[in-house]
Amino acid sequence: MLAIALVHYPVVNKNGQTIGSAVTNLDIHDIARAARTFGAGPYFVVTPYADQRHLVDEICGHWQEGYGASYNPARKDALSLVRVTDSLATVITAMGDECGQPPLVVATSAKAGAKNVGYQELRRQIAGGQPTLLLFGTAHGLAKEAIDMADAMLPPIYGAGDYNHLSVRSAVSIILDRLVGAERD
Amino acid sequence: MLAIALVHYPVVNKNGQTIGSAVTNLDIHDIARAARTFGAGPYFVVTPYADQRHLVDEICGHWQEGYGASYNPARKDALSLVRVTDSLATVITAMGDECGQPPLVVATSAKAGAKNVGYQELRRQIAGGQPTLLLFGTAHGLAKEAIDMADAMLPPIYGAGDYNHLSVRSAVSIILDRLVGAERD
Repeated sequence: MLAIALVHYPVVNKNGQTIGSAVTNLDIHDIARAARTFGAGPYFVVTPYADQRHLVDEICGHWQEGYGASYNPARKDALSLVRVTDSLATVITAMGDECGQPPLVVATSAKAGAKNVGYQELRRQIAGGQPTLLLFGTAHGLAKEAIDMADAMLPPIYGAGDYNHLSVRSAVSIILDRLVGAERD
Repeated sequence: MLAIALVHYPVVNKNGQTIGSAVTNLDIHDIARAARTFGAGPYFVVTPYADQRHLVDEICGHWQEGYGASYNPARKDALSLVRVTDSLATVITAMGDECGQPPLVVATSAKAGAKNVGYQELRRQIAGGQPTLLLFGTAHGLAKEAIDMADAMLPPIYGAGDYNHLSVRSAVSIILDRLVGAERD
């Protein structure tokens, strides 16, 4: 099982202060579609705010049972991976219960950190059956309290130079491709 | 030069009919950020509709000269890559003039097609200095008229199985990583 957690709390704002961010519609859709494409899931949308969890449920409901389900079955398929959850601790406990062992929790960041695991090494572990939970931060990234819950951390994504202000939607897509994409020619 | 064209016409709708699609704000931002991260650009936003071109100019202006420029300099940096253009033919001519030779035009699609070039082969050509223009379709993908303007086509992105309903934002990110991302460990 390769699960994804999109974290809306605790994350940091541009000044490095810990905040809770708002859920956005396109994060739900784009990341669910990428997860479905790469055989990942569940996709946990993590927010402590009840009204935000309700909003995600409504969006997913539209595409699962509403008009959207018949209009776009591929979208229904992707959004079936979404599980709305109140905290990272709840996610980790739920995954441990379902897998019969604690998941390897791997944080992601645009900044280099400690506890690094390489992409190829993690790809091998996932292929070997290691239940893994990838943490992605919204706003300006995961807060230290969230990174501290991880067992390991992936290196930032670099292209040319040191600019790496990718959207979280882009980062999830690239990291899934690196970890479980089909071998490319 | 590795340029990107996000095509809003000619593309197809879910029934395969050729249409013009509407520009969306997040396509502009996410793809500009990915292009900047991977050292790609210009990023051509292609639409024949004058009001849509005006909208893109207004969005980019906010982040380049308006309040956004001082609030988020990294975003200003990314959006400076955007060039709003009326047609693919204009893009190809402009690139040819700037590069002193016609670009290699490479279409992308979620469906396998003819004229395939592999990711590793194209990566080598780009690294060797071949000016290249990547075409991405909005809506349900590039219409045949757009694909016919390409010299080559990249294979679809596959993960696990044959579901590959990625957003165009995800597809651009993954393809740039495959073509010009730093070698991963």
